[in-house]
Amino acid sequence: MHKGFILWFTGLSGSGKSTLSEHIIPLFKERGYKVELLDGDEVRTNLSKGLTFSKEDRDINIGRIGYVARLLARNGVITITAAISPYSAVRDEIRAYCDHEEVPFVEVYANATIDALAARDPKGLYKKALAGEIKNFTGVSDPYEAPENPEIEVRTDLETIEQSAEKIVTYLTSKGLIG
Amino acid sequence: MHKGFILWFTGLSGSGKSTLSEHIIPLFKERGYKVELLDGDEVRTNLSKGLTFSKEDRDINIGRIGYVARLLARNGVITITAAISPYSAVRDEIRAYCDHEEVPFVEVYANATIDALAARDPKGLYKKALAGEIKNFTGVSDPYEAPENPEIEVRTDLETIEQSAEKIVTYLTSKGLIG
Repeated sequence: MHKGFILWFTGLSGSGKSTLSEHIIPLFKERGYKVELLDGDEVRTNLSKGLTFSKEDRDINIGRIGYVARLLARNGVITITAAISPYSAVRDEIRAYCDHEEVPFVEVYANATIDALAARDPKGLYKKALAGEIKNFTGVSDPYEAPENPEIEVRTDLETIEQSAEKIVTYLTSKGLIG
Repeated sequence: MHKGFILWFTGLSGSGKSTLSEHIIPLFKERGYKVELLDGDEVRTNLSKGLTFSKEDRDINIGRIGYVARLLARNGVITITAAISPYSAVRDEIRAYCDHEEVPFVEVYANATIDALAARDPKGLYKKALAGEIKNFTGVSDPYEAPENPEIEVRTDLETIEQSAEKIVTYLTSKGLIG
């Protein structure tokens, strides 16, 4: 049986977590691996309806994603999570649980500057947030704690999606997590 | 890859859902299958902290268990759930989602009379509930909707645990779900 692992994306809204996830899923599937994507929005609907965007509720939401991701990964599934997950303490807590169960936890920091994201801004969210119209908007009116030692960092504002995906595949191959 | 499925226990508190689950897990593991148990209490801690025992919140809790069970089962895991799951509508909704994804959904009704459970009652819960001291206690002060057409019915008040387990194994074997 192939050993599952968690590919944990973290990064600001619009930094390319979901897009990059969708791009790499076929690369895993064509190698014959089982893959699940736990996307932020889908998970909020299925696991966390009613939770707010307060720090406490965000941590609960991320904890639930971590719990489900571990269940899947320990059964041989490559599990990708693509929620903002702004707080480092809860990410590190999930990493610790994974270490305990010997489930590899691969943190991918989707890094892009606020300026770059605000310039792109397809939904106009940064514009509104910068104008003070959205409360609890990560990176503008709410904290984002970047990972200090992520396994992988992709600069989605400077690299093409193919370059970022290549970095991820190269890392996973070097660690023997994919063949 | 072995095809996963969901073994969905439903029944009153104390009817033997968890005990029977723990008893059959080794029977699956010795055949080389991957197995996960989503127990009612564990799931409440990890997915549903803060939810009450109102009908609405119970349904949300059961819906979350169903979502996670489907994720696991569609990746080849035998997924056992052991929550009371008192309302038939939400159980049938999960069954419909499973049908849609071609994940076999096997409902197991752990049937025991209230009298038998109240006579056993190791934690004294039925005694308190019958005395009106516990609100929303399923089967006493809260509804329990028994399944009309469960794939398997075990009479945990009349059968030994080995007899109930045998029924389950026989059914699963006859359907080709385990070998």
